[in-house]
Amino acid sequence: MSDTQEKKQFVEDLTDQADDFSRWYLEVVRKAQLADYTPVRGSMVIRPYGYGIWEHMQRLLDRRIKATGHENAYFPLLIPESLLQLEADHVEGFAPECAWVTEGGREKLEERYAIRPTSEAIIGHLYSRWIESYRDLPVLLNQWCNVMRWEKVTRPFLRTSEFLWQEGHTAHATEPEAREEVLRMLEVYREFIETELAIPVYAGKKSDAERFAGADETYTVEGLMRDGKALQCGTSHHLGQHFAKVFDITYQDEQGKRQHVWQTSWGMTTRMIGALIMVHGDDQGLRLPPNVAPVQAVVVPIWRKDEDKAAVRAFVDRVKQMVGDVVRLKIDDRDQYSPGWKYNEYEMRGVPLRLEVGPKDVASQAVMTVRRDTRAKESVPLAALATRLPALLADIQASLFQQAEEFRSQNTTLAGSKAEVIAHFEADRRGFVAAPWDGSASYEAEVKEKTGATLRCVPFDLSRFGSLERPGHRVALFARSY
Amino acid sequence: MSDTQEKKQFVEDLTDQADDFSRWYLEVVRKAQLADYTPVRGSMVIRPYGYGIWEHMQRLLDRRIKATGHENAYFPLLIPESLLQLEADHVEGFAPECAWVTEGGREKLEERYAIRPTSEAIIGHLYSRWIESYRDLPVLLNQWCNVMRWEKVTRPFLRTSEFLWQEGHTAHATEPEAREEVLRMLEVYREFIETELAIPVYAGKKSDAERFAGADETYTVEGLMRDGKALQCGTSHHLGQHFAKVFDITYQDEQGKRQHVWQTSWGMTTRMIGALIMVHGDDQGLRLPPNVAPVQAVVVPIWRKDEDKAAVRAFVDRVKQMVGDVVRLKIDDRDQYSPGWKYNEYEMRGVPLRLEVGPKDVASQAVMTVRRDTRAKESVPLAALATRLPALLADIQASLFQQAEEFRSQNTTLAGSKAEVIAHFEADRRGFVAAPWDGSASYEAEVKEKTGATLRCVPFDLSRFGSLERPGHRVALFARSY
Repeated sequence: MSDTQEKKQFVEDLTDQADDFSRWYLEVVRKAQLADYTPVRGSMVIRPYGYGIWEHMQRLLDRRIKATGHENAYFPLLIPESLLQLEADHVEGFAPECAWVTEGGREKLEERYAIRPTSEAIIGHLYSRWIESYRDLPVLLNQWCNVMRWEKVTRPFLRTSEFLWQEGHTAHATEPEAREEVLRMLEVYREFIETELAIPVYAGKKSDAERFAGADETYTVEGLMRDGKALQCGTSHHLGQHFAKVFDITYQDEQGKRQHVWQTSWGMTTRMIGALIMVHGDDQGLRLPPNVAPVQAVVVPIWRKDEDKAAVRAFVDRVKQMVGDVVRLKIDDRDQYSPGWKYNEYEMRGVPLRLEVGPKDVASQAVMTVRRDTRAKESVPLAALATRLPALLADIQASLFQQAEEFRSQNTTLAGSKAEVIAHFEADRRGFVAAPWDGSASYEAEVKEKTGATLRCVPFDLSRFGSLERPGHRVALFARSY
Repeated sequence: MSDTQEKKQFVEDLTDQADDFSRWYLEVVRKAQLADYTPVRGSMVIRPYGYGIWEHMQRLLDRRIKATGHENAYFPLLIPESLLQLEADHVEGFAPECAWVTEGGREKLEERYAIRPTSEAIIGHLYSRWIESYRDLPVLLNQWCNVMRWEKVTRPFLRTSEFLWQEGHTAHATEPEAREEVLRMLEVYREFIETELAIPVYAGKKSDAERFAGADETYTVEGLMRDGKALQCGTSHHLGQHFAKVFDITYQDEQGKRQHVWQTSWGMTTRMIGALIMVHGDDQGLRLPPNVAPVQAVVVPIWRKDEDKAAVRAFVDRVKQMVGDVVRLKIDDRDQYSPGWKYNEYEMRGVPLRLEVGPKDVASQAVMTVRRDTRAKESVPLAALATRLPALLADIQASLFQQAEEFRSQNTTLAGSKAEVIAHFEADRRGFVAAPWDGSASYEAEVKEKTGATLRCVPFDLSRFGSLERPGHRVALFARSY
């Protein structure tokens, strides 16, 4: 089979985004070997390439979580039903989606255990034992773990029964300190997602209807996927004293008086791998931001005659020596696949840079670089590789952000009234719609009922929405969402 | 309360190892804030200080797992009962200790799911789908995750229903390649445990009675705790074709013929935190090897007069600037505790180096260093800190290993016969006993029944046991164990 035939077949295999975005998504997940289905209802396996992305996300976010003073810990997977039931809103929100352990060893248990859907309850119980004095505050903990929410309709990364995440849980002496923490961690998410994942997000506050079960207030960062749907990318909750009161988490203040603590929680999940796919992907497959790409540059050696092989290989070794420490490099010297087949495979997998090394490149002591995002080619002399490759990667990172930002800008519509919001979505137009909102639940409910769009957030930054400000109203962003 | 009174009270609180090792262990776990009990049967919470140790272990072991060609992935937490039942020995070994999920959402499930006690079954199922050709082999995957084995009697880190571990799972074209992998990963464990945890281990093969449920052969590294009991520190299993046959994991070889793969699995767990405590701890508490200590050096500022405070603080800032990047440093400038109280606290927590900074030190532009292992003091000039502290830490790391090695050497007894083995343990003597073993299960069973000691392994390295070699016998190591 010729290169051209191979290429055609490989690309034909992938559905166009415009034809069926949902099918395109599922095909990319499978073809790029990010994840696979399993015989466990609603659970996926995250394959090494997908998990590699997650490891980079973890590394880059964990660094920020620690830099803001938090430490990691590990709390139990199982939560006794009686603990989960203490906070009324919380149990109402989560109990219907719990998986329940009812047997252990060969015995039926006296009390059911939920596999954690989130850990406020078990952590609240322990904080009540650990916190005694104002000197013990603030408590700033985070955990990386698996959680489970029994889902009927699932989609890899976006909605699965089991998923991976980090959940931060903090306790503070005063309400203002807790509020500051909530906003600090929302800002950590915004900066992490925009810097490392190249996804622009709107940061803001959720409406009462959309807030976390058991929280006073929920804040969110919302991204826009290429099919025009919004995706919640991370949330930060001001828990107030709800859990402190039911779990009796108190401290003695400087005057010797017992006070309840103020709490926050905040989380980000493997769902963000889905966001990466849907924000940056194109009709050839994934396009990964270099900062989280498991492979930043793939070297494809090329020879037609056997006598070229040794020289090409030796040159590839030199390339590896020059840049192996500054760039995450993979060398694909498999004999059974043609260069053209490999080009398509790494485009599908979204590797930011391809480095072609053939006899001509060896002769000119240079490497032909091909960008995944623009397909722009540039011959880079061997001696310049160690500085030019990182610069190219930084440029790709910036360019992906800019493209996503332009897409979001083109797909954020200003509407002057509720009627315009409804008309937008009824006309099957997509993206975010910003509109003045009177703060009522009935407004939200009407939009949702008529169009399926929900209130994503009341954004902090009004610089683009100044024209929508009305007395007695806030600007809100609506969108259909995942 | 004076420093002396405080000190006395703090130290009096900790049971002596010689009086009650088990109680000493539990007290250290709680007082050093490594872990705590929870209302979930058999589950503990790993507190930040304990989890910090685990994070360093993960980082240092993960690096070695990747350097030997493995990639990380993530497989489902839940395993359908029907999958677990496919391999007869495996289900017999694990089913009695499984926690079972029987309800999801509001529905009773048609089939029970086990929370993974280990992942051979679910991974075997997926390998059967992923592996088609010899070109797909070897498959070299690892996962870091939580597992659960329903335990009746638990002890923090050593035996809990839920624990954290890594489990490697590989598939190979041939038996020799699988065997090579099994021994390669056992050597990775040995080198990691000795280098980073400063724990000397005997590497060897388990007897048939002690091998993993579903394996052909199990290899182990065994450490010796300060109470004379052995602890299994890591295992590597040659799975043969047991799982390949029941899960139908086959590949087409170069001749186009279908073959079953050969598999291995290998794991190391949070139990190693328990090993660190029990190998290096003393009557003042923990002693952490610097390579995995969350805090390698703690700075305690000292002043008696308020006018000294500013100068001491400024000097501490300079210390931080000089060594903050080369040593994991903590500065404890809490006003409410005296220096003496802090000394005891960091001894309890096993911080390898204490740096005292008082007015005299400021005057001489030096820092008084105190080693946790030997309590040796040394004044180090500020300008020399960045080279001297890492050297001191390396010396502590080496010294802890040497002490553990000497203890093990003193507590490894050579016995010429089964009768001598039995006599040793019946006299309530401790440690490892090396003896010629005829390879029979009855020998093992008799020792176990009469003394409670088990055959820990048939060691690879016979340099210390040459005198025990007999025709038709192997040298085996026996010990009471955790």
